[in-house]
Amino acid sequence: MDEFANPLSNLITRLQKLPGLGSKSAQRIAFYLIAAQEQEVLDLTSAMLQAKESIKRCKICYNYCEGDLCPICASSGRDKSVICVVEDPKDLLAVEKTHEFIGYYHVLHGVISPLDNIGADSLTIKELLHRLADDTVKEVILATNPSVEGEATAMYIARLIKPFGVKVSRLAFGIPVGGNLEYTDNITLAQALDGRREL
Amino acid sequence: MDEFANPLSNLITRLQKLPGLGSKSAQRIAFYLIAAQEQEVLDLTSAMLQAKESIKRCKICYNYCEGDLCPICASSGRDKSVICVVEDPKDLLAVEKTHEFIGYYHVLHGVISPLDNIGADSLTIKELLHRLADDTVKEVILATNPSVEGEATAMYIARLIKPFGVKVSRLAFGIPVGGNLEYTDNITLAQALDGRREL
Repeated sequence: MDEFANPLSNLITRLQKLPGLGSKSAQRIAFYLIAAQEQEVLDLTSAMLQAKESIKRCKICYNYCEGDLCPICASSGRDKSVICVVEDPKDLLAVEKTHEFIGYYHVLHGVISPLDNIGADSLTIKELLHRLADDTVKEVILATNPSVEGEATAMYIARLIKPFGVKVSRLAFGIPVGGNLEYTDNITLAQALDGRREL
Repeated sequence: MDEFANPLSNLITRLQKLPGLGSKSAQRIAFYLIAAQEQEVLDLTSAMLQAKESIKRCKICYNYCEGDLCPICASSGRDKSVICVVEDPKDLLAVEKTHEFIGYYHVLHGVISPLDNIGADSLTIKELLHRLADDTVKEVILATNPSVEGEATAMYIARLIKPFGVKVSRLAFGIPVGGNLEYTDNITLAQALDGRREL
């Protein structure tokens, strides 16, 4: 990338590391920043540093939050008997937006993935089991993604939870609402058949 | 966006101002930065600040550069008799990548756009005319975009250059190579007909 001055090509390289940005979009943002007001760039960089510094993991569910506890764990009006286990905070938000779940959450911060060198120890599985020690929790919903790794992680956790005598469930997989049988892949369709419900 | 802690929603808002980033992609980048190594965030923010600080405009052509002159204006092996006028540094790069142009450039840093309150004074048009004062330059190629504003800016500059007795040309407009007559819009096709060349 020798067509750019050094600080510019350095900025483009760094921007390209962000998820979803290719070389063209990184270049576009870099040129935008150079042409922008200095205050805007200062605001952006300080927002980054401040978020990085002040956002911690909730001491109970490991969701992102500012203080010790996230707003969900801090609230007392929810159903203490159910924990929904998700891969990361974005998934928690997705479930929360359905307004259908009133229990508490547990964020794993990843899935078991031997290829990426992520073992069960780097997730918050131990901390999840800790939460099951007293008998408050009656059900754990495993809401990891329907990927190979998500599935394997759900199976792994399910096996560890068994001894606690807690009900373990998994999200239903099938045809998405508004979807089309013709364009649904075989595996999803097979799951939809397998999980059919009596009317 | 009250589902996020304050520093996080602030970061997402700032990221959304960058070109090409919507709310979902800004959210994705924000979560990525929070989970990233602290060093990576520091590297990114300092790259932004350093680029913003050290990248200046070339004193001759107003391209972005580190010192007083951009590498193109600093090089002596190019054709001094032609200047290619572009809207911004990205366009300069696009022309440079064709390897077909060996003259010098002039970057306007925008186009005349009354709706956005951008008049001729905020562009580097005066500086362009200054470069035509001695008789070195024989041709000015107006390579602004084929948009309404780009076209108007080209016409405006052409009129100002006339008195200098310099040849003024415009890029050819027509069907892009690999394009398809069937899917070409009327105006482009009309331009292609109008600009037809004898074989």
